[in-house]
Parts: sequence; C-alpha cells; structure tokens
Amino acid sequence: MMVKYLLSEKDIPKQWYNLAADLPTPMQPPLGPDGRPISPEMLAPVFPMNIIEQEVSQQRWIDIPQEVLEILYRWRPAPLRRAIFLEKYLKTPARIYYKDESVSPAGSHKPNTAVPQAWYNKQAGIKRITTETGAGQWGCALAFACNLLGLECKVFMVRISFDQKPFRKLMMRVWGANCVASPSTETQAGRDILLQDPNTPGSLGIAISEAIEQAVADKTGQTRYSLGSVLNHVMLHQTIIGLEAKKQLAMAGEKKPDIVIGCAGGGSNFAGIAFPFVCDKIHGEDIRIIPVEPAACPTLTRGPFSYDHGDVAKMTPLLPMHTLGHTFVPPPIHAGGLRYHGMAPLVCQAVVEGLMEPRSVTQNRAYESAMIWARTEGMICAPETSHAITSAIDEAIKAREEGKEKVILFNYSGHGLMDLLGYEKFLDGKLTDYSPSDDEIKKFLLPLEGLPKPSTQKTGKW
Amino acid sequence: MMVKYLLSEKDIPKQWYNLAADLPTPMQPPLGPDGRPISPEMLAPVFPMNIIEQEVSQQRWIDIPQEVLEILYRWRPAPLRRAIFLEKYLKTPARIYYKDESVSPAGSHKPNTAVPQAWYNKQAGIKRITTETGAGQWGCALAFACNLLGLECKVFMVRISFDQKPFRKLMMRVWGANCVASPSTETQAGRDILLQDPNTPGSLGIAISEAIEQAVADKTGQTRYSLGSVLNHVMLHQTIIGLEAKKQLAMAGEKKPDIVIGCAGGGSNFAGIAFPFVCDKIHGEDIRIIPVEPAACPTLTRGPFSYDHGDVAKMTPLLPMHTLGHTFVPPPIHAGGLRYHGMAPLVCQAVVEGLMEPRSVTQNRAYESAMIWARTEGMICAPETSHAITSAIDEAIKAREEGKEKVILFNYSGHGLMDLLGYEKFLDGKLTDYSPSDDEIKKFLLPLEGLPKPSTQKTGKW
Repeated sequence: MMVKYLLSEKDIPKQWYNLAADLPTPMQPPLGPDGRPISPEMLAPVFPMNIIEQEVSQQRWIDIPQEVLEILYRWRPAPLRRAIFLEKYLKTPARIYYKDESVSPAGSHKPNTAVPQAWYNKQAGIKRITTETGAGQWGCALAFACNLLGLECKVFMVRISFDQKPFRKLMMRVWGANCVASPSTETQAGRDILLQDPNTPGSLGIAISEAIEQAVADKTGQTRYSLGSVLNHVMLHQTIIGLEAKKQLAMAGEKKPDIVIGCAGGGSNFAGIAFPFVCDKIHGEDIRIIPVEPAACPTLTRGPFSYDHGDVAKMTPLLPMHTLGHTFVPPPIHAGGLRYHGMAPLVCQAVVEGLMEPRSVTQNRAYESAMIWARTEGMICAPETSHAITSAIDEAIKAREEGKEKVILFNYSGHGLMDLLGYEKFLDGKLTDYSPSDDEIKKFLLPLEGLPKPSTQKTGKW
Repeated sequence: MMVKYLLSEKDIPKQWYNLAADLPTPMQPPLGPDGRPISPEMLAPVFPMNIIEQEVSQQRWIDIPQEVLEILYRWRPAPLRRAIFLEKYLKTPARIYYKDESVSPAGSHKPNTAVPQAWYNKQAGIKRITTETGAGQWGCALAFACNLLGLECKVFMVRISFDQKPFRKLMMRVWGANCVASPSTETQAGRDILLQDPNTPGSLGIAISEAIEQAVADKTGQTRYSLGSVLNHVMLHQTIIGLEAKKQLAMAGEKKPDIVIGCAGGGSNFAGIAFPFVCDKIHGEDIRIIPVEPAACPTLTRGPFSYDHGDVAKMTPLLPMHTLGHTFVPPPIHAGGLRYHGMAPLVCQAVVEGLMEPRSVTQNRAYESAMIWARTEGMICAPETSHAITSAIDEAIKAREEGKEKVILFNYSGHGLMDLLGYEKFLDGKLTDYSPSDDEIKKFLLPLEGLPKPSTQKTGKW
C-alpha cells in the first residue's frame, strides 16, 4: 500500500489562491487609531508596497514569481503521506492523510511565506527585515529566506521560547540572522514592558511591537517589518500547501476530503491547508473544516469577534478578528507558535460565516497525541502540530464509532526535533494544563470596549 | 532546472547488494582469541542466526523482506538532490548530486539497517536488543525500529555525546528505549574503565563492550546485540542508498558519477553510497571513490591494516581492518559518529585492493564546509556529513581548475539539528583541531603486535 504521494517540480502550483475573492461576506478593512479604514499608503513605513498590494488584493489567483518557485523547489512540492500505522492503531475505517510541511530546511511550513516575503522586499530595494518569533519556527524560516536572498534579518524571539528552545536561535545564527529575547532593552516597547514586569515570559504581541518599532525607526527607509502569520498575504502564500494536497489526494484516488484539520495560532498553516477546500465548500462540497487551538489560548473558541490591535503596544492597525484582547499574555505552553491573542482576519471571517468548526485541546492531551504519533507513525511532531493530530485522532475514532470510511486530511506543520524538552516534561508527568477562567478572559477583554465593532452578519450562502 | 529526483515506492530496490561477491580478493575471516577463524555458531550468543547468515554470505543479491520494505517506505526512496546553489557559489563546472538520507524519522541513514536488524531479531524470537551509540544517530535509529516492531531497546551512549547532545537521548526515550551514558556502572567492562579514568569521554569501543556484555549476560536467550556499522550485514543493508542513487542519476541524465564520496566512521553510510559503484569500478568503469574521515581519528589514512578487536574489552572477534588500535580513545570531536578506532572490513579490503582514495579533514575545516553548505544550499548538516561535503567542495574546485564537467555524488548522511552546539563553538572560534602525533598512534598500535596479520596482497585486477 502506498504511504506517500509525491509531485515533481513541474507539478508545483504556479499561483496562490486568495480566499478573499470567494468569501460570501466581504472582508472588513483594517482601521486606523481614528476608527477609519487605513489606506495602503499608511502601511508603507512597515511593509513594501508590493506586499501591501497583495494584502488588499481581491484577485482570486496570484502568480508565484519564478525565482520564488526556484527556491521553494528545494523542498516543494512537499509529500502527502498516509498515516496507515495510526489508522491501524485506532482501528478506524477512516483514511488519514497528512501534508508533511516538516520537510523544509527550517522544519515547518513557515518558509512558504518567508521566501516570497523576503523576495518582494528585495524587489522593493529593502536591505533589512525585522520580525518577531514565538517558538522560533518563523524566525528560523525568515533567517533561512533572508540568507538565501542576501538580506539582513533581525528577530525578536518571545522570552519563554528563547529560553526553552536554545537550538532554534542557533539555527538563526547559522543562517546569519541576529536573534534577541523579547522583551528586549533595544526598543521603547520592550523597555516599557520590562519596567512593569522584569520576569515576563513575553508574548508574540510584545515581540511584534518591538519588531515594528525597530523597522519604522530606520530613517534610511531600507528596513521593513515582516509578519509570519495573521495577515492576508501570509495566508495567501501558505495556500500552496492545500493546492498541492488537492492534486495529491487525487493521486491517492480520493475525490475530496471529508474533514480538513490544522492547528491554529495566528492561522497561517491552518489557512494554508484549509483555504483551497473552503473554496470547494463555498461552492457546495460537503467538507468539515477544523482549526484547532490550545485551551490555554482559546482565541476562536472563547474570544469574541472584535476589532483589536495585533500587538501589545498598539502599533498595528485594528484588525477584525476573534481575540482575547491585545494585553492577553498566554500561559507558557510549549506550543509557542500557538500563543497569540488574535487570529488571521480571513480565518475569523470564515468562522463568522459558519464555514469552520473551531476546537481547543489541552496541553497534556496534545502531548498524549504526539506520543501516539511517535510510536505509530514513528515521527516526532512539533507541539503545535500535535493539536491537529489530536483532532485527527478524535475524528478517526468518531468515524470508527459511526462505521464510516471518512477521508481525513490534516497539516503536519512541523517536526518537534527542537522541542524535545516539552516531551521530557510530559513523560516526567510535569506538564501543566492551563485554561483561563471566564473572569480572566473578561478582564483581558476590557480594553476592547472602546474599540469599533465589526459586522457579524453572515450569509450562510454556501 | 530540476533540483531533486524522486522515485516512487514501487521503484525501491527489492534486493541489497553484497560487495563480498565481487571483491577481487576474498574477504579474510574474523578470528577467535586462539587466532583461528570463528564459526557462525560462535557468534550465536551475540547475534541471531539469520543475521549471522547474512554476515558470512557470498551471495551477490539478497532479497529485502516485504515487511521491511513497508517500513522503509515511510521515508524511502530518499531524494537525490542537486546542489546547484553550492555549484554556483563555487563557480564550478562540476554537477554535484547528494543523496539525502537526512529525511528518515531518525534524521540519518541509520534506520536503513536498524529496521532489518530489528525485523530479523524479531523473526528469531528475540525480545530485547542492546547496542552502543556515538553521536546518538544509531541509538535513535534502533530505538525507532524497535518501537515499530515491538522490541525492547537498550542503548549505551558514549559519554561525550550523551553530554553534548541531550536531545538525542530524549528522542530515544520518546521511542521507548532506555539510554544510559557509557562507560556505565551496569557492566563489568564499564566499571573497569571508570575505575581507571572516572572522567573518560568514553568511546564507541567501550560502549560496544558494554552492550555485548549485557546481551550475552541474559541467560533467557531473549536478548541479542546489534551493531550500527562495521559488520558486513550492516554494509549490505545500507547499499539501498547507492542502488537508489544509481536509478536517480539516470533520471538526471547522468551516465555515471566520476567521483563518489561519503564520510567514514565505521563505514556504513560510505559503503551504502559507494558499494554499488565499487561494483561498477571493478567491472571497468572509471569512478573515483573517496571515504572521508576526521583528522582526529584517521583510521584509513594513518592506521595499519591489521587484525584487531572491535571493542576495548576485546569481546568481539578479531577483524581484518585498518585500525588505530582497540585502546585508542578518539579526541572529543563533535562528529561523534566518526570516533571509531576501526573500520568496516569490507571497506578496508577495498582500500587494500586500491579501489578507494581515503582522505582526512580537520574539525574546523569540516565546520567551514558546513557553514558554506548552510548558507548556499540552506540546510544544516550533521558534523559527520560535513566531512563528505568538504571533499565534495575540494573536488568541485579541482574540476573548476581543470575546467572539467565532472559528476560528483556524495552521501548526505544526516541533518545537524541535534548538533547545533558544535556550530555555536565554531562560530565562537572555540573549536579545537585534533590530530594525533605519530608517537601517540604508535603507542596505541602496541597492543596489535601479538595479533595475527591479514594478507595485504592485492590483485589490481579491475
């Protein structure tokens, strides 16, 4: 029985898919501090104009530049694999496929957007890119891409991960990037936070503030900021995952998946696997689509849909998204890449429209799934990815109980070779489950009260 | 331009290639303590009989069991990639191909033999396997294989690597193996060494003694020992690498490689890529074949061809090989997988016959190459693999100087994601180059004086 489906380089998708063109309800614009829609020009100190054009584009298909494809060829098309050993272990009639994004040199799906972002910046004459990183996957990916394209790269890494994942910062160093722990003393935003709480574990929201501050502070105009998730153009670049998976499912003789699953922090790997199938769902296919988040940071499952800032220091525009409030500091779970208070507006708009079924998973449950995975499929997954595996297992068991031959597809967003300390804590029984109380969430939502509210209307027309 | 050549599962080689059937000079037998050839039965307390049969086989092609293939399918056939970015950087007319063995779940070529070894042991009714490991690649591979096949696994890991590479032992734990630092207090061999030198960095030779002692000590007969390199059956299992590479070079339109390169510690990844091409060389093809070892442990380049023990405590039979003496404790270089005093007899016999051109490389030179690799090809290689890359770079530069379009093939034996501390030391300028003096080597060769001498006759008939 075949366990992997490989595409050759000539079969790589030549265009990205833009869900904004197909959503039944149009995307609501980002707003400035005055509550009015921000113009592309207002973003120009932060991003180069070619990326801003993609950010606001309504075009359904957008060409992938040839030079970007030639870098992606190093690891893409990525394999689609079938988890036959997990299927046997679960005694499920479901067929479980996973798209293996762990094969990139940086170990996750993140280079899919790091490479085009670095390339567009280079085209725009930019010499230096700043960014934030949680678990370090994104920082590694941007370091990798900037190195290949000859750009400088500066990474603000969330303190808790900087300490827990010493090897990721070494990877960035090998690829020539400069990585510092956030909050740092290099920025006003960082210094302010450290003054309030010198022992803060940090958060993506804080690190974003620092990276943006340092980008716009360069008065030569040669520095821009890059975000590894959340924004529309990032979701766009990641759709190559789902577009490849579609071709590969066809190779495996599957007409369509019944269920598509991805873990969701800022939303990018989830969007990557899901959006091409959301398109099919909008056009009438029966597909369930499940973003899975940590119970410790339950943005989609417990946060309201509201306008909010993407960062703690309120340097970003207001985005329409499910959010726990921009001052929410997620507990120090090992799935650092899922510790984000907000979520990609494109994902959130699809959730509002009822196109998706968000789930949350506790830390210990996620590691249990990771261990089942390691001992059946033989691969060690990233702690983020274990959230997707958990839902895949749940759905496979449900298929067994219902006696149905479902096709389950999930995104294997990254390997866990740099995250083994979390496995050690789990095996030692020392891993804590966090779940914020309703009162805690309420407290973090207070700063949202004065902010504009996006429409929560849905068409249900799909 | 294509940068990778992929085979589908149905194109995987169905048989291993046994070089012993084609060597111009026959292999010289292992000898017992009395200097007489040992019989297969004498090895029975250490290995199961089905593996012993492979060890002494003269059959050219040996079938790969179907169940073994089905496990190998998880990552095999492995990609053949072309290093076009390194080629550009070096401005070489050479075409550089590398077989990517880093894609296995354990991160190296080692599972190619771990899986069949565990499978043959299981067939023979064995319940538990003991082994040694250097850098941890082999221990991880055997842990991975034993877990999938439901066998217990005990690993003695060389102390220096146990301390330098904390994550590798966690991988073994995730896969359910029990890993201890060697020398340990669990065996007589370990206790003896610790008594002499409590701070010893350990060596593969010591760890082998411990693993064999513990295997034969199990009087239920349900435990056997497994070796990750050196022996004939291990070389056999690894030939799947070169057999796949041959098909893939043909896909790339190459008639043959001009140069085949692999790093060499015990010899297994080198044999894996090289032996199918040694066969072609014996039959008249013009191919240069280069094993690359560390200057700190220069077995092939500075050790004599002699009968010697494979381990410090002299528990193994005497093997005909290039050796630095079984009491040689290699300096603590980061390429732990290359810290072995001996070398596979099959490799050594081919060297004696003049079929190969061994090279040695200093530690800093190897890391320089690893950094060039990371910043051109974008991948972070294992410290062992950087030795092969160094020779590939040397040969590509030579091709440029000669203005010749050579085809260079090397084995990318593993990734370096668990070995980043070595990179850090290199980048900090803190890495030491070791090279034993002639007097040091002479001292370690003293114990060989009373041992039998193998024939060094060669036919030159190829």
